[in-house]
Amino acid sequence: MERIRTTEVAAHVGERVQVAGWLNTLRRLGGITFLVIRDGWGTVQSVAQDESDLAPLKEADAGVESVLTVEGTVASSPQAPGGFELQNITVNIITPVTEPPPLTLSKREIKAAQPTLLDHAVIGNRHITRQAMLRLGAGIMMGFRRTLNARGFTEIQTPKIVESATESGANVFKLDYFGKPAYLAQSPQFYKQIMVGVFERVYEVGPVFRAEPHDTTRHINEYVSLDVEFGFIQNHFTVMALLRDIIAGIVSTLEETCSSELKLLEVRMPFVPAEIPHIHFTDAQELIFTQHKVDVRGEPDLSPQDEHWLGEWAQEKFGSDFLFVTGYPMRKRPFYTYPDPDRPEYSNSFDLVFRGTELVTGGQRLHLYNDYLRALEKAHLPVEPFTTYLEAFRYGMPPHGGFAIGLERFLMQLTGLPSVKLTTMFPRDINRLSP
Amino acid sequence: MERIRTTEVAAHVGERVQVAGWLNTLRRLGGITFLVIRDGWGTVQSVAQDESDLAPLKEADAGVESVLTVEGTVASSPQAPGGFELQNITVNIITPVTEPPPLTLSKREIKAAQPTLLDHAVIGNRHITRQAMLRLGAGIMMGFRRTLNARGFTEIQTPKIVESATESGANVFKLDYFGKPAYLAQSPQFYKQIMVGVFERVYEVGPVFRAEPHDTTRHINEYVSLDVEFGFIQNHFTVMALLRDIIAGIVSTLEETCSSELKLLEVRMPFVPAEIPHIHFTDAQELIFTQHKVDVRGEPDLSPQDEHWLGEWAQEKFGSDFLFVTGYPMRKRPFYTYPDPDRPEYSNSFDLVFRGTELVTGGQRLHLYNDYLRALEKAHLPVEPFTTYLEAFRYGMPPHGGFAIGLERFLMQLTGLPSVKLTTMFPRDINRLSP
Repeated sequence: MERIRTTEVAAHVGERVQVAGWLNTLRRLGGITFLVIRDGWGTVQSVAQDESDLAPLKEADAGVESVLTVEGTVASSPQAPGGFELQNITVNIITPVTEPPPLTLSKREIKAAQPTLLDHAVIGNRHITRQAMLRLGAGIMMGFRRTLNARGFTEIQTPKIVESATESGANVFKLDYFGKPAYLAQSPQFYKQIMVGVFERVYEVGPVFRAEPHDTTRHINEYVSLDVEFGFIQNHFTVMALLRDIIAGIVSTLEETCSSELKLLEVRMPFVPAEIPHIHFTDAQELIFTQHKVDVRGEPDLSPQDEHWLGEWAQEKFGSDFLFVTGYPMRKRPFYTYPDPDRPEYSNSFDLVFRGTELVTGGQRLHLYNDYLRALEKAHLPVEPFTTYLEAFRYGMPPHGGFAIGLERFLMQLTGLPSVKLTTMFPRDINRLSP
Repeated sequence: MERIRTTEVAAHVGERVQVAGWLNTLRRLGGITFLVIRDGWGTVQSVAQDESDLAPLKEADAGVESVLTVEGTVASSPQAPGGFELQNITVNIITPVTEPPPLTLSKREIKAAQPTLLDHAVIGNRHITRQAMLRLGAGIMMGFRRTLNARGFTEIQTPKIVESATESGANVFKLDYFGKPAYLAQSPQFYKQIMVGVFERVYEVGPVFRAEPHDTTRHINEYVSLDVEFGFIQNHFTVMALLRDIIAGIVSTLEETCSSELKLLEVRMPFVPAEIPHIHFTDAQELIFTQHKVDVRGEPDLSPQDEHWLGEWAQEKFGSDFLFVTGYPMRKRPFYTYPDPDRPEYSNSFDLVFRGTELVTGGQRLHLYNDYLRALEKAHLPVEPFTTYLEAFRYGMPPHGGFAIGLERFLMQLTGLPSVKLTTMFPRDINRLSP
């Protein structure tokens, strides 16, 4: 008999089917035993009315996490989780597990403390809530690519081992490259800009490495960056319009492909308006002063508290989970940032605030070679390490811009998890290199 | 006027359109000037009948690689490359380029020597043949994901910084991780197996790092690996059947999304039979002995010459560009390889030979904890560094297997390029860390 997935049983009521997976839960209630089978997509309950149905488990001394198949008749059952269960079952053990796993996977919540959970992530990731959360990550990547593929973007894979720590000298991992020093790329920024000169519209999904020596709930040292860069833009508003479409594409892809995961995790999905509201950096500071009597005017950046207030304001005024803050001061943005032509101390850049926390940073970039030379000089940076990067601009680049979405941060804000370390399969932090 | 892509002009004969891009070629012939415009997708010729049409170029001293828009009327023209051209044009310069680029991009072939081309890859990647070849790489990734998404696979992103160089101690890059030694992952092998315990069917597209100190046409030290791993298989033939479907999916995706690139590069596309022929390792050695009078029987592996002969045989006997060689000796395969139950000195593994060169390696893996303990002992490997990996097997894994396709090698064999270094945007080799 061809196995079906646990998520498919609802379509087979009255039929005899086979599911395969792991024994997630074994629970006796009176004379009846409930076996919950977990496969790669979800769970289904099966019911052993007779002790003899469980003989294969007993013979193999097989407990939870044993790999098995269960054949049974699908019945609608209001009490069963999901509303369906398998009855009159035949169990077949594939791989018996005879000792209890280091984490309890059979309960609705994981009870383990975070370090224990992360130490045993190999097993912990099997828990239905973690399986579901990690699948949302795959759904975000899928929605990201779908939206961009439909708009003529080309996927790129840029080098992760780089010669110099050019973008910012600090916080880079150093490695030994055949006896020469090299670094892990902090971002594909320079390469994605260069590739706008080839494909005009590019994106990348890949790891980035930040040697930030901080141990907080918002730091991991290796994460997945969803990067976009494209040419022939008007200004940063062209970039913001694309980002809006990507967020909308991700949300609709999640709703389409991960509906059971969203339900299990009780995710409150954001509404993405046709145009995400925006406010200029200086107006945002004025607003905070007016509404909260806190004078942050003149500060070069927004604090987490500022972002929180602005998120509340966007919710109240526009009913929007999202808000663009535009025009950050040039002095807080990297040297390749395009200045506001009317107010050159501000920039054609933006942050996207999602539910009161910054999710995405982006903007328009310089595209003229001479502007780069001037910008480097102003930033007191030498030209030489940037020679190959500058070749792109020396030989013709259009106005362009882009942004980067941190996959794990997006997941954290979407699911409400308390730490970004919980949003990735095997986090890397200042103290953790394993598993 | 909304710009259209150069690849869209054929649909607009008789209409006034605007294209945007780079001035790829400027060629005078009698009183007429031909301007070839290159954008992110291809090229189109435009014709200046009158010298005054070129005034914007002259005023800006703008030469090749200048960024511009050209408005014109689309005309069918048998002499024009692609069969269409823009006439009665209006040129508008966006970014003038006043000095010639370090590589000539305007000719059909790149004349530069390989080191020069790679030194100036930032510009060289703009050449229409390299733009097309690199887009095939994106097409391969798309076909890979499409095929797997349609079969319920989940995309994963596994850590690239790892604690120990477990899989093979040699040829790993070492880095400084907050004062502790760490390594760059040579492959996602262990993580993808672990994640079969979560999602059953997983794939990853990501960088892998090999510190192999060889400078050959077949070596680069960072490449893109297309990895697959999945559970509940029968044996390695289940894995081979999936690989066949992926190759077919990649070929059809390329034909659908990259037809102009395939034409430009004159790629001879392979035919993928419904079932790719297969031959056992020992039979392959017998065949070579019979057909070529070279006795390689007893050798633990196939040489490039052997693979070449086998490729010829598959072509002659089956008309197939592809051939599976199965059952490689256990002693040449990694410790996690599943032995052939009938002949335990051989393995449930395979190589896929494409046009006489190995393209993919894969097979069934061990899935029982005790088998891993025995295999490590036999390989004289300590258990301790594998503790977290082994946790997956200790707590229940199904029979599973998988494989990895090297993106760059596939591109090389498909396009017939003479070196794998030419198949990637910015190659990393023993002597090259830049651009």
